[in-house]
Parts: sequence; structure tokens; C-alpha cells
Amino acid sequence: MTKYRNFPMVPRVVFGQGCFEQLGEILMPKRKNSEAPFIFLVDDVFEGHEITKRIPLIFNDQIIFISADEEPKTHQVDALVSQIKNGYTELPSGIIGIGGGTLLDLAKALALMLTNPGSSSEYQGWDLVKKPAIYHVGIPTISGTGAEVSRTTVLLGPEKKLGINSDFTPFDQVVLDPDLTHGVPKEQWFYTGMDCYIHCVESLNGTFLNAFSQSYGEKALELCKEVYLDSLEAAESRDKLMMASWHGGMSIAYSQVGVAHAMSYGLSYLLGVRHGIGNCLVFQYLEEFYPEGVALFHEMKEKHQIELPKGICAGLSDQDFDTMITVALSLEPLWENALGKEWRKTITPQKLRSIYEKI
Amino acid sequence: MTKYRNFPMVPRVVFGQGCFEQLGEILMPKRKNSEAPFIFLVDDVFEGHEITKRIPLIFNDQIIFISADEEPKTHQVDALVSQIKNGYTELPSGIIGIGGGTLLDLAKALALMLTNPGSSSEYQGWDLVKKPAIYHVGIPTISGTGAEVSRTTVLLGPEKKLGINSDFTPFDQVVLDPDLTHGVPKEQWFYTGMDCYIHCVESLNGTFLNAFSQSYGEKALELCKEVYLDSLEAAESRDKLMMASWHGGMSIAYSQVGVAHAMSYGLSYLLGVRHGIGNCLVFQYLEEFYPEGVALFHEMKEKHQIELPKGICAGLSDQDFDTMITVALSLEPLWENALGKEWRKTITPQKLRSIYEKI
Repeated sequence: MTKYRNFPMVPRVVFGQGCFEQLGEILMPKRKNSEAPFIFLVDDVFEGHEITKRIPLIFNDQIIFISADEEPKTHQVDALVSQIKNGYTELPSGIIGIGGGTLLDLAKALALMLTNPGSSSEYQGWDLVKKPAIYHVGIPTISGTGAEVSRTTVLLGPEKKLGINSDFTPFDQVVLDPDLTHGVPKEQWFYTGMDCYIHCVESLNGTFLNAFSQSYGEKALELCKEVYLDSLEAAESRDKLMMASWHGGMSIAYSQVGVAHAMSYGLSYLLGVRHGIGNCLVFQYLEEFYPEGVALFHEMKEKHQIELPKGICAGLSDQDFDTMITVALSLEPLWENALGKEWRKTITPQKLRSIYEKI
Repeated sequence: MTKYRNFPMVPRVVFGQGCFEQLGEILMPKRKNSEAPFIFLVDDVFEGHEITKRIPLIFNDQIIFISADEEPKTHQVDALVSQIKNGYTELPSGIIGIGGGTLLDLAKALALMLTNPGSSSEYQGWDLVKKPAIYHVGIPTISGTGAEVSRTTVLLGPEKKLGINSDFTPFDQVVLDPDLTHGVPKEQWFYTGMDCYIHCVESLNGTFLNAFSQSYGEKALELCKEVYLDSLEAAESRDKLMMASWHGGMSIAYSQVGVAHAMSYGLSYLLGVRHGIGNCLVFQYLEEFYPEGVALFHEMKEKHQIELPKGICAGLSDQDFDTMITVALSLEPLWENALGKEWRKTITPQKLRSIYEKI
């Protein structure tokens, strides 16, 4: 009888330049007692930074700095769970992720795993989580991943790179302060924004699309074009890219990503390539699947003088290619969205290898 | 310290042609026990209609048919509260509104007033509600009001037409099934869709706007243009108008409606003019404030051969005009949004009277 997903939305959002200032008053009513801390997972680029000084710490609240140099991992989540369970007598009042997709995904996964038993790797998949997470808040400091609004948290596990997709995954609260994205290095700004752009192209060209996802995806795509092709004033550009990421994440409600994401997961799994750049590395060669989207991607890349690294897959063994291909092909919903139920007729291991070899 | 509203979003939404079918399974886990019914408030045009037969009634659930011929009223809400409190030993498991803006607003208000003491008229205003509502679900059968997603429920009270604006007002669940809007009469389809169009024009031209509201408002406006100016296939048109209404409602998060809504409230209060048509009656004469929006409105009106009624205000007494003007001027946030803090310099009772006299 369930034909359409009953989609969980983030139930609270505050948006505005400087709204990070309101975090203390937002958290206060969610504090269970003085023994139940808020745990702030913060990208370690902010260590000693002004943003960190503005975090409203009281009682036994704790900041844990985490590097986003690598993709978030299941064993990293499991270690955080142990650290917190051993460090406090009570479950935290909440988990607050401050950073990019890596930090947001870690915060979501940690909040889930504080109430669900076992290893986070057991929950990679669709709707395997049985218990609600503890209260969790997402505060993006770079725009594009859509992690702030999605119902997944994508983790690199021992066997796969796959999301914990569940109704309990989305944040209870999101704080969208475009000022926090001030100072993001140009390359990262580009790659992360392209994560949004690429997943909109994939979603809008997918077979799963309906009017709900289409309307969000179209708006996100339009905002990406404004940001990367027009000449907006800096603050307006930050505002709009943050909204692009938000709408882009929402557009996944009734759609899916596609070819670029599937293949990029293979790159991440084998080589640890970061998600944003991985998507770009693959997407540049997908004109067969997304002709218009790829053409526009090259235009944006040139406008911002972005040089993608080359030779990433040079010198890989047959076994390496097979590993990437196996990971990519395992993401069946992505392929089905991209190419329909008969996707296996078009997509063969040889086909994927020929694309990986270009990268 | 609170500069930006921490906006409450509808936490669950299902969208898709035919998704009304899933209502039973959506409600089941929310059923408190067999003595706590679901109360379905249903527009009485659906009495004996196929939609009503598909409502998943069990135990002592009840359907209450309500006419949407008149604007929803505070005394009507208060009477419903008494009826339900007297009729059952327990509070309901939830309230489900099925209909247009009137039914959705009644459902929201009823859910709030089952847990908050006194008359609903005591809560007309901003953030006067202290206790969470009982579980409530909105199922629109006509698109445009945005009532399915807004944090208000607009009621005609003994002293004013004003919303109960609160964080507890939004629905806990919305079911967006575009098939339910099949068969809406053309005039109603036009007037209700124009409610969305007009509030987007007001919001996008308002001083309160930020990038969050702008992105939603622009998308809603674009969808309205597609629906009313292009030649879409019927099902696609229903899908898109439902999404226009949704995004239009969201665009109010960090914005406000403006001149047309303020003046239309006056018409509703004095003459009981329905909200959708009231907005159109006023908006047609607002080229001074919204030149592009009004021009496009006339284009849409002509394309669909809509004749607005004339002479609505003919024969009104000075006192009648004063009443309408007082109601309109009392809506200060709307005027401030439309014209800035200094709005009183532009807007005088004489000015409003001259516009009302044309209607």
C-alpha cells in the first residue's frame, strides 16, 4: 500500500546572516539537566577560530574537534559513541554538528547510535534504524552537500560506502547562517557547490522524479547557476548557495542521485577521494548521460578557473577497478533512477571501467 | 537576541497522485487507544462523495461535515471544542482537516483549542498559544491558500479577522494528493490559486524578505505562471499548483503578505467576502504598489475568462468604510512589510477608502 514515502522534514529551521548568535537560546529548552551535556562536533579547521569561541558552552558541554580531511567512517562513529558513553553518566542532551557534510553526517550518525545498539555499519542501508535518535542540530559552514536536510548520513564502512537512510536521521533543528561560510577556500567552495549542482542534474533527469522533487530541484539548480555563472555580490552569493543546498537536499525526497554519485562512491571507497571532488571527477565525463548538465559544468569550471586533478586512476590494478565497479554497481536505486528498471542493459562493468580509466 | 524566527516546519509530508490511499497506515501509529478517536473535519461538498468513502474510519472515529461557504470563525471553533469534549471521554487521537483553507484552518484551530483553555478568540495574534496542540493532519483538496504549511490559522472573531500565529499551529502531517483537487470549479480554482500568486507578489516585493523566503516565493510564482499562463496537461497542472501553494506558504517564513491581504481582511470582516476572491477584488486595483504583478494578474484573468464581481462596496455607509479601514490598518506587520517602517506616511484612511470605493 505504501507507494509514496512519507517524508520526514527538518521540523525547525532558522535562516539569516548572523543567526548562529541564537544557538544558545535555541538549545536552552532542550537541555535535560546539568549532567546531560551538549556535545559539539566541530570541524578542526575552526580550532581557535572565532566561530568556536561563540559556541554557547555551559555545565559539562564539550567540543570535539574532528578533521574533515577524510570521509566519515563507521568506526569513527562507533568510537565517538564509546567515548561519550564512557565519559558521562547520562546520555547527552543533544549533538550539534558544525561543519561541512562530514561533520553533519557524523553528528547525525552519532545521535542515532547513542540510542541504537551495535555498530553503525549494521545500519548502512534503508530503514534499518529502529529507535529515534537523541536531539541533534546541524549547522553547515559550507554549502552544497544537502546533508543539513537529508534523511541519510553517508558513511564509509568496512564493506561499503552507504548511507544510514531512516526517518530518524534528519536533524531536529538546522541553523542556516550564511556568514559561517565566509572564508571557505575557492576550490572547496566550488567542489561542494557542485555536489548540489550535480545531484540536482541527476535528480531532475531521473526516472523517480515527481512534481515535489522537481520543484525543489529546479529551484536549487537555478540558484547554483546564479551563484556560479552570474556576478552576485559576496553576501548574496553565500545566501543563495546555502538555499541551493537546502532545496537540493529536499529534492531528493522523491528522487535519487544517479550515475555521478554511484561512480563517485567507488572512488571514495577505494581511494578515499572526498565526495565533492569525486563527483566532479566523474561528472566531467558523463556527457552521454547528462549532456546539458555536463556542458554547463565545464562552463562554470572555466569561469572559476578550477583545474581538476588528473591521473587519479592511473596505475590502478584490475582488482582495484573491480572494487570500484562493484561498489558503484551495488547502488541499485541510483542506477534505476538514472536509467530506469532496465539499467543493466546499458551499464556493464566494461562501461564503468572505460569511464574510470579517464579519471 | 532573537532576530530571526526559528521557523517550525511541517515535520512529515507525503506527496503524490493517489497518496490519500496511505492515510490509514499513516494514522495507525498515532492512535492512542480505541476510545480516543480521530475526528475528520471534511468540507461538506464531499458529503456522499467518493473521497469521503475512502476515509479510513475505525472504532469511534467521526466525520464532521462543515460548510466552507463562510470564512472560519472563532465561535465555530469553540463550538467544535465543546462538541468533542462532551462527546468523548478522552481527547481525540488527532484532528484531520480535509478541504480548502477554511477546513484546514478549522482543523488547526480545533487541535490547538483542545489543549488550550478559553475561547479561540483569545489567541488571535502572535505567539499567544502556550500548549502544544493535539496531533493534526492537513489534507488540501484545493490549492493555493498555503494553509497546509503555514504557522497560522486565520479566523473571523468577534472583533477582528486575524490568525492564531504560533509554533504549535502547523500540521504534524500533511498529505498532498493532487488527485483530490480534481473537479474543483473553475472560478474557485482561479481565486484560490490567485491567493498563492498574490501572496508571493506581496512577499517578494516586501521589505521583510530574505534569501530563504525569496527562493520559495520565486519558485511558487514561477509555478503559478506555468499553471495559469502555459498550457499544461491537467494532471501536471494539478501537481504544480499544489507545489506552488506549498512553496508559497513556506515563503511566508521570513516575509509577510501585504496591501492586498490587509485590505481583503477588511472586506471579509465586514461583508464576509471569501478570502480568495477578496484578494482578487483588491489586488486588481493595486497597480500603484505592485505594477508588474497586477499586469500579469489581468493577463491570467483574461486567459481564463474570469469576471470579477462588481459593485461590492456600492451603497456602503461611511461607518461601513470606516470599519473596513480600521480592520485593514490594524494589520501593522503587513503594512510594514509592504511599505517599510514609515508606511503611515503613504497609507491614510482616505487612500484606502478610494480603493475600496472602486470595488
